[in-house]
Amino acid sequence: MPSVSATQDQERAVGKDLANPLLVRACYGDILDRPPVWMMRQAGRYMPEYRAVREKVSFLDLCKTPELAAEVSLQPLTAFGMDAVIMFSDILVIPEAMGCPVRFTESVGPVFDHPIRTPADIERLRAIDPNQDLAYVMKILGTLRAELSNKPETALIGFSGAPWTLASYMIEGGGSRNFTHLKSLMWNEPQRLHSLLEKITIAVSAYLNAQIEAGAQVVQLFDTWAGILPLPLYQQFIQPYHQQVIQSLPTDRVPVILYVNNSPHVIDAILETAPTVMSVDTLTPLSTAIAKARPKNVAVQGNLDPTALFADPSALAPMVQKLLQEGGDTGYIFNLGHGILPQTPVDNVRLVVDTVKQYHCKTIPNTPVT
Amino acid sequence: MPSVSATQDQERAVGKDLANPLLVRACYGDILDRPPVWMMRQAGRYMPEYRAVREKVSFLDLCKTPELAAEVSLQPLTAFGMDAVIMFSDILVIPEAMGCPVRFTESVGPVFDHPIRTPADIERLRAIDPNQDLAYVMKILGTLRAELSNKPETALIGFSGAPWTLASYMIEGGGSRNFTHLKSLMWNEPQRLHSLLEKITIAVSAYLNAQIEAGAQVVQLFDTWAGILPLPLYQQFIQPYHQQVIQSLPTDRVPVILYVNNSPHVIDAILETAPTVMSVDTLTPLSTAIAKARPKNVAVQGNLDPTALFADPSALAPMVQKLLQEGGDTGYIFNLGHGILPQTPVDNVRLVVDTVKQYHCKTIPNTPVT
Repeated sequence: MPSVSATQDQERAVGKDLANPLLVRACYGDILDRPPVWMMRQAGRYMPEYRAVREKVSFLDLCKTPELAAEVSLQPLTAFGMDAVIMFSDILVIPEAMGCPVRFTESVGPVFDHPIRTPADIERLRAIDPNQDLAYVMKILGTLRAELSNKPETALIGFSGAPWTLASYMIEGGGSRNFTHLKSLMWNEPQRLHSLLEKITIAVSAYLNAQIEAGAQVVQLFDTWAGILPLPLYQQFIQPYHQQVIQSLPTDRVPVILYVNNSPHVIDAILETAPTVMSVDTLTPLSTAIAKARPKNVAVQGNLDPTALFADPSALAPMVQKLLQEGGDTGYIFNLGHGILPQTPVDNVRLVVDTVKQYHCKTIPNTPVT
Repeated sequence: MPSVSATQDQERAVGKDLANPLLVRACYGDILDRPPVWMMRQAGRYMPEYRAVREKVSFLDLCKTPELAAEVSLQPLTAFGMDAVIMFSDILVIPEAMGCPVRFTESVGPVFDHPIRTPADIERLRAIDPNQDLAYVMKILGTLRAELSNKPETALIGFSGAPWTLASYMIEGGGSRNFTHLKSLMWNEPQRLHSLLEKITIAVSAYLNAQIEAGAQVVQLFDTWAGILPLPLYQQFIQPYHQQVIQSLPTDRVPVILYVNNSPHVIDAILETAPTVMSVDTLTPLSTAIAKARPKNVAVQGNLDPTALFADPSALAPMVQKLLQEGGDTGYIFNLGHGILPQTPVDNVRLVVDTVKQYHCKTIPNTPVT
């Protein structure tokens, strides 16, 4: 029984492969019966299976041991049946590959013992060869593609931190609250900050292209700290580097998702860089994001508040339904507005995934269409 | 020589007392030769004079010892000559007065040993009598008014935390990154959260009115965490309580300044509550804020990035000049976009205050007007 939506689908899907994973089809705006669902940081501490692996190995060793990283990447697929697997890794592998090593402590998080503070520190940074310097990441992707060979409907996602966020960690020496060092460099020596961002941008572009060669079917660029600047500074120090990265990618066949946290004031600037998908934070209502993105032919991902997963199921379910209705049947990917939190109850994760997968965008007619 | 601005000034100043402090006149939109200047958290750790006092006494004891609190309140006036003195205190004195005691640790910050987690916890909260329960704050204000009796041009500012921010500390039990408890209550039992916010709103209104009776000439409402909600939730859980507090105040004679951090997405909702002044964070360009506020007859305060005070003077000075030019001669108060940071170099604070005080909004004509 061919449904109305299938017909429209074929009309819209010019140049798209209907055998593509659901996530890829949603990125390109195909009309679908339901949106795909995955969750940022879905392989992580909220899962007992993940914690069991972490008891045996440190965070950085986990990132660098391809078979273990592939194992934890697949855990949420096995447990909840998301429509995508995102490789387990960390955004700070790039600084390390550039010659700015990082270590992770349980209490403080990432620490750079030698943060970027002088012109010489920037000069010293190496250009990366991702296939050599980050061979372990490519191996994770290769392993995952092999594991997913019998699941063509499940997409494999690669990712990178974006230049501004990576620069913030490298300059501050770790997480920061006020970004005093980063902003001081911006106020005092903007050209020097630009030269650092240029170097990181080249590395990020090479890294994401290598991930695509290694099997990533979708890539996401995470700019967690890009929301700390007002629009005029965002346009100077962030937007051009998003644009450079996006333009370096084969976006006609591999979608790129751009995530900027705390972004209501820079939505237009995000859309101007023409990502395939804009991943929406918790501050912008999904309907607002869609109203801005659709006319630009940009799909939208998001944006359930990660704290909603701590709510009672009776409060959570209507929030999920509301997003599904706003998202509609085209160009929408169900996700969170930020990474899933470590204490998240797994039953609520299951509830969300099941709810999305049982949703139908269209009412199937009761009488067959002949 | 009567200048053009003085004439316009008198026309505009109907019902305003020209003997008012500069800050009060700026709040009410009088035309001025230069804006007043002060800095949020101006009495604080960046000052050696303040640190000397803190060596002898804990933070909470400092808040509760009126003569010492008055002393540190006056330190920035003595050192830099700001146009206003803000009483030294903490926003968390209200929860304590309501029966939800707080202690301060050097490393973690404020800690509530018994955070609000059950319906009974909310029921148990007391209505406050500010003149009794917070008599020490009123005494600080009385002392400061006496000290400032020979400086009628210097305004005395009182303040309170806003209901949402106070509720967040009381529910989370201290500072928070994800506000999981606060938001869980919002998702699961919105009416219960409203009942808590109602109780706090009554306390905040009583507290600010008592501060005005005790001598505060301007009051500021700080809603540091109000920017964590998207607009539809802000309109439910934050805006009505701002409105209630503001409507309880004699704003025709004592201006109220409303500060919401991380607020680009809620600017219109802030203006709808009709504060006398909107204090602008670092994310909204001052010119954007002014363009929205002026038509609503709301003055604007802000918004130098506190990290700009870490820049070289040659980079800092043009940032100050730019704000002065955008702010113009009416309805503008020079301030930061957020509280001053503990490591701020004092010479840069002096540079900013001096630059503002030496600024003239209008070029005085070379030939006398006869």
